[in-house]
Amino acid sequence: MTSSPTTEICFVLPPALLLLDFAGAADAFRIASQMGLPVRLRMVAPVREGEAAPTGLGVSLSGVEPLPAHLGDDVLVVVCGAVGDGEAVLSRRGSRTLVDWLRLRVADRSVACVCSGALLAAAAGLLRGRRCTTHHTLLDALRRLEPTADVLDSRVFVEDRGVYTSAGVTAGIDLALHLIAGLGSPRLAAAVAREMAVYLRRAPGDPALSPWLEGRNHMDARIHRIQEALAHAPAENWPLSRLAEIGHMSVRSLTRRFREASGMSINSYHARLRLALARQALATGDTVERAAERAGLGSARQLRRLWAAGADGTPATARGKGPD
Amino acid sequence: MTSSPTTEICFVLPPALLLLDFAGAADAFRIASQMGLPVRLRMVAPVREGEAAPTGLGVSLSGVEPLPAHLGDDVLVVVCGAVGDGEAVLSRRGSRTLVDWLRLRVADRSVACVCSGALLAAAAGLLRGRRCTTHHTLLDALRRLEPTADVLDSRVFVEDRGVYTSAGVTAGIDLALHLIAGLGSPRLAAAVAREMAVYLRRAPGDPALSPWLEGRNHMDARIHRIQEALAHAPAENWPLSRLAEIGHMSVRSLTRRFREASGMSINSYHARLRLALARQALATGDTVERAAERAGLGSARQLRRLWAAGADGTPATARGKGPD
Repeated sequence: MTSSPTTEICFVLPPALLLLDFAGAADAFRIASQMGLPVRLRMVAPVREGEAAPTGLGVSLSGVEPLPAHLGDDVLVVVCGAVGDGEAVLSRRGSRTLVDWLRLRVADRSVACVCSGALLAAAAGLLRGRRCTTHHTLLDALRRLEPTADVLDSRVFVEDRGVYTSAGVTAGIDLALHLIAGLGSPRLAAAVAREMAVYLRRAPGDPALSPWLEGRNHMDARIHRIQEALAHAPAENWPLSRLAEIGHMSVRSLTRRFREASGMSINSYHARLRLALARQALATGDTVERAAERAGLGSARQLRRLWAAGADGTPATARGKGPD
Repeated sequence: MTSSPTTEICFVLPPALLLLDFAGAADAFRIASQMGLPVRLRMVAPVREGEAAPTGLGVSLSGVEPLPAHLGDDVLVVVCGAVGDGEAVLSRRGSRTLVDWLRLRVADRSVACVCSGALLAAAAGLLRGRRCTTHHTLLDALRRLEPTADVLDSRVFVEDRGVYTSAGVTAGIDLALHLIAGLGSPRLAAAVAREMAVYLRRAPGDPALSPWLEGRNHMDARIHRIQEALAHAPAENWPLSRLAEIGHMSVRSLTRRFREASGMSINSYHARLRLALARQALATGDTVERAAERAGLGSARQLRRLWAAGADGTPATARGKGPD
């Protein structure tokens, strides 16, 4: 990942910032950056040089930049939400400046809106004709503000051609994890989620869980340690005795606790990771034999057998279909 | 609730604050306060008057108080975590001052620690002999720091005689919701969670879900609106046609979507709320007849019938047993 160009994640902080809208997404990107994702965080607000940006909690954020006249090419703009109803969000001193800046500087760029940030983006015309969402109490306000938008009302977040919008407050964390999965990998997003102790969730309309995320919705720290070892090197052979050692438990406890926590056996968990690895290899053009080898399977036949048990189609049909 | 004394929620911000540790809990309490919970937020840090408190994100928080020489009587101290491993958290300039302050001013008070905040509390001796937890990567550091503590490793949060500790980062939101349920009510905590779009979660060791929280782990905004109407006035009769109107949908869609979203029928959902209401009435000494009336049930017999279908024991055995 170190060879990719660095993406600037530019957080736009409206007056009366809802601090959690910003902190949730920003800490997710900070952790991803520490784990190797080539991103750089930048915080901008409708303030003068040296002025602090007020939050809805009474405290302010200092060290924030005034709205810049130019943005780089490889930038993702994250518009955070503010405290209050639709009128409050749009009518504060500074909101108009912010909306004008969004209209002038951000149109046609990748934009992610957290919670009521979607109202600011809509006022700037960025949601014209798009599918989008926002905090559940602001859905009607968003519909009035941008009648051409298709406002969805039961989604954690919505993506439409480079424009992302999320439901209320904590949904910004889910959106950030989704963006991290796209900029990096689902595996990195799962590692960030784990670091933040975010429970992995499913919601109507969510895509199926990636195998790197499956079976991780529990709080057993030792089982997570074992799952991390497996996910770090799925092509290896992992005798139960070695996994039990990593978890500081007996083999008997291991098999019981693994199943209790993850909802599946260790074998099944390991097989899913291997399948995912093989699928990635096939998607980038590897032969079935080479994909089997990469996934630590003895032969193409063994891969086909695993595939038949756990996935649709055959390894051959999955070649060149793009990564999961 | 307006007649209760105001509780001060005093957030303690360590150097290199992990912003989400603070923002998650603080925004939860801010929303609870707007919904009527008598709390006042205060932010303190090892800074000089007028100095901003640095976060791990590069920006700083201004408008924060220096560590006060005195704390009021009705105060809950929330020790937030910092970025980095155990050594980093404890060794920064300001951390020693903070730990000394915790030892002198906070011992024997209600304390809640988010994530690595538990390390600071442990260094100040506040976790001596207590059951507690922290971020999953810091469990061993916490054990070394306070060998007399019983450090639990697979809990979202742990409560031990007025001392609360939570797992990593976002678990601070769960802890805040738990504290809000205690200071206010489970119903208020559910309303705050809904406002923040927090999914309700269960984890090993969690108490059973309150009926005010059950069936709310979905993203269907219209069904939430209907559930809010029911929860607001569970003693009322709610013809399906009236609920369908609230949800802007047909009765047929209503019954289907309600079950899909909540995992139970409308009747069952309504019955659980009525049972909870009756249980509260019985716990505060009401007769079975009076409890039935309060829950909007025609007779004690109807309450007994509902009870037999949905709860252990009988209404009579539940009298005076304290609220759920």
